Amino acid sequence: MQEAWRLTASQAARAIAAGELTSEALVRACLARIEVREPQVGAWAWLDPALAIDEARQRDRQAREREHAHLGPLHGLPVGVKDVFDTHDMPTQQNSELRTRHQPARDAAAVALLRTAGAVILGKTETQEFGAGGRLARTRNPHDAARTPGGSSSGSAAAVSDAMVPLALGTQTGGSLIRPASYCGAYAMKPTWNAVSREGAMGSSISQDTVGWYGRSVEDLALMAGALGALREPAPQPDASLRVALCRTPMWQHADEFSRAAFEAAADHIGRAGGRLDNLELPSHFERLNELSRVIMAGEGRTAFLPDYRSARELLHEDFRSYVENRSGITSTQLCEALDFSAACRAEFDRIAAPYDAVVVPSAPGEAPLLPGKGDSVFQRMWTLLHAPCINLPLHRGPHGLPIGVTLVSGRHADARLLAAAARILS
Amino acid sequence: MQEAWRLTASQAARAIAAGELTSEALVRACLARIEVREPQVGAWAWLDPALAIDEARQRDRQAREREHAHLGPLHGLPVGVKDVFDTHDMPTQQNSELRTRHQPARDAAAVALLRTAGAVILGKTETQEFGAGGRLARTRNPHDAARTPGGSSSGSAAAVSDAMVPLALGTQTGGSLIRPASYCGAYAMKPTWNAVSREGAMGSSISQDTVGWYGRSVEDLALMAGALGALREPAPQPDASLRVALCRTPMWQHADEFSRAAFEAAADHIGRAGGRLDNLELPSHFERLNELSRVIMAGEGRTAFLPDYRSARELLHEDFRSYVENRSGITSTQLCEALDFSAACRAEFDRIAAPYDAVVVPSAPGEAPLLPGKGDSVFQRMWTLLHAPCINLPLHRGPHGLPIGVTLVSGRHADARLLAAAARILS
Repeated sequence: MQEAWRLTASQAARAIAAGELTSEALVRACLARIEVREPQVGAWAWLDPALAIDEARQRDRQAREREHAHLGPLHGLPVGVKDVFDTHDMPTQQNSELRTRHQPARDAAAVALLRTAGAVILGKTETQEFGAGGRLARTRNPHDAARTPGGSSSGSAAAVSDAMVPLALGTQTGGSLIRPASYCGAYAMKPTWNAVSREGAMGSSISQDTVGWYGRSVEDLALMAGALGALREPAPQPDASLRVALCRTPMWQHADEFSRAAFEAAADHIGRAGGRLDNLELPSHFERLNELSRVIMAGEGRTAFLPDYRSARELLHEDFRSYVENRSGITSTQLCEALDFSAACRAEFDRIAAPYDAVVVPSAPGEAPLLPGKGDSVFQRMWTLLHAPCINLPLHRGPHGLPIGVTLVSGRHADARLLAAAARILS
Repeated sequence: MQEAWRLTASQAARAIAAGELTSEALVRACLARIEVREPQVGAWAWLDPALAIDEARQRDRQAREREHAHLGPLHGLPVGVKDVFDTHDMPTQQNSELRTRHQPARDAAAVALLRTAGAVILGKTETQEFGAGGRLARTRNPHDAARTPGGSSSGSAAAVSDAMVPLALGTQTGGSLIRPASYCGAYAMKPTWNAVSREGAMGSSISQDTVGWYGRSVEDLALMAGALGALREPAPQPDASLRVALCRTPMWQHADEFSRAAFEAAADHIGRAGGRLDNLELPSHFERLNELSRVIMAGEGRTAFLPDYRSARELLHEDFRSYVENRSGITSTQLCEALDFSAACRAEFDRIAAPYDAVVVPSAPGEAPLLPGKGDSVFQRMWTLLHAPCINLPLHRGPHGLPIGVTLVSGRHADARLLAAAARILS
């Protein structure tokens, strides 16, 4: 247990439950790893080592009192929290000059659920401004400091993939969770929209904002899903063959040769694992969804950013002023049409995806681009708008040795089935 | 100006802008009125007279410094805030044992907008638990203490109709804003869903929760709509005739003879005012919407109340435990079908309502029932789910002398047109 920071969350949870590892030792190991790596990576917006160690000791006392029985699923596990979620004991700054040192009174809903499950909130991770645009996180890709970790959940993705912390919370409105997972090489899950409450996390587009998380294995993702209450329906009993659809999506031309190679390698892997593979072509009108996700972001962002705009517009990034001033000239009719069209596509995609345990799609156009590039959310927007659960599998590498993921997708609330499919693919 | 508490908000705003009335005098007048009436009505969950007077004096200083020019639209006006909205300077208790004396660090988005517009937050008004069910507000109907004011925005509706404060914020998820307006006799507006951000106000059903407000005239409702940035599209230039549809709705059998009489009287009034009247029958599948609003409330409430359930279920009312435990047995498929069906109906209702300046519908089954009855949201649920703006006009009285309203409805984002229609009907 000398290198406890190398453990997955699930391994660490088992060791803690068995009395073989203390929360304090794990937290100290993570803090030591952070001390070494943070100067290069810059994943943390707020870190209070003494507070985290104190919390860990409390968890250890609870474990001893209960003789290591009846512990929550995350008991003693350190979790990083994207700095858009309110925390009652650490500032929540949103990477915005409007929230410098802002100290909330209560935890966001997702943070409260983590604590009830026994987690130790290790610290707050760097984010793009309000998790939605504007000022970039200062975080660098842990595999290459010249490259972007992707945004906006930059710090959470980097911290988990760099083994600073086994689990972290993020959010996705466009591609803010899965894109950084692909660029940094983390397992990540964006569940069905509103499977987890976004209360107490800054919202930018109410119809798209989704709470998600990072882990170091599929098992870790399932652990977090349970702790956050995200699984509405049980996974069906697995039958003999895993049914998987390969979907190159209408955005395939945006995938470079290495992203395409990652996709084909995933297909080969699933085939060898005994999966039954179909090719799936989406109806052509799904091509509109990426653009509509931008229309909805602009239309709903106008509502979300109005209060800060009216009280202190000079402190708000141009991106958000643009929404409030409606510089793209989106009419209410266009907003409503975008909402209604995407609602109809949701039902349609649920039907299309229903026969499959998972649909495989690209996670990103390729490896993480060089800074100041921030990458492209082209492969996430559709799925966020469709409210479809997504899991990034960080299985592949590009020509610079950087990660390239593939995404598994399913219809709404098939989250448990999707997790089961991911586990079978990797077993 | 001896009885400043009798003024509408618009009258008071003009008097303040002209230097004929101070905010302090108005706030003191309201506080005096509250002192007389509060023992009977019980509208206020939190009131800090010294704080409100201090705020009012600041507004008066600002007005003098600016020589009464460039004042916000609500400059110096006292506003009541339903105790589900966070306020940085007053507790936000949600009528829940889980939030006793809870003091938020920031204002909710809607409260921040009010302050930027110059309002003085007079105090927090009583609400049903979490604005969503459970424990009733202790508020009584100001016209008859034996009767309900309706819920959940009980205190805001009672305070405005009883002239304790000219304006107040409320919310509606089922019928929480318009029903109390009908029972208490207040003007009220529920705008298009997400026209005003619900950030910092407890959410129970993300697809239905809507911020709304009360005033003492249609002009007051328009004043609040502007201050809150709710009007996305300008009202079209009025042509000669006002086009109004009379819609008895699929719930007509729930309206008693007095509610029906109020509806017919409103029709007569509009006819005499030169309005062109059509009868409108909704497509028969709209009959499902009231039931689907309950399915969505239960399905989304499961997400909203999970954190409090997991941390302190014994302090949470049975109504909310029922959602989290999914006692109604709603499947995810049923939830998604309800969301998709209602999304399709939204587009359909926008088309149906487009030719009209307003659609007239009943506000409530009749007068406010005797306590411990709380009344029925049967005439609001459909419109909340359709995201359609609604205005309650408190024009009629029932056999016990209690108010009975009628509601004007329009398609999404026709809020300004609807306000203009309401003003024409009453002119």
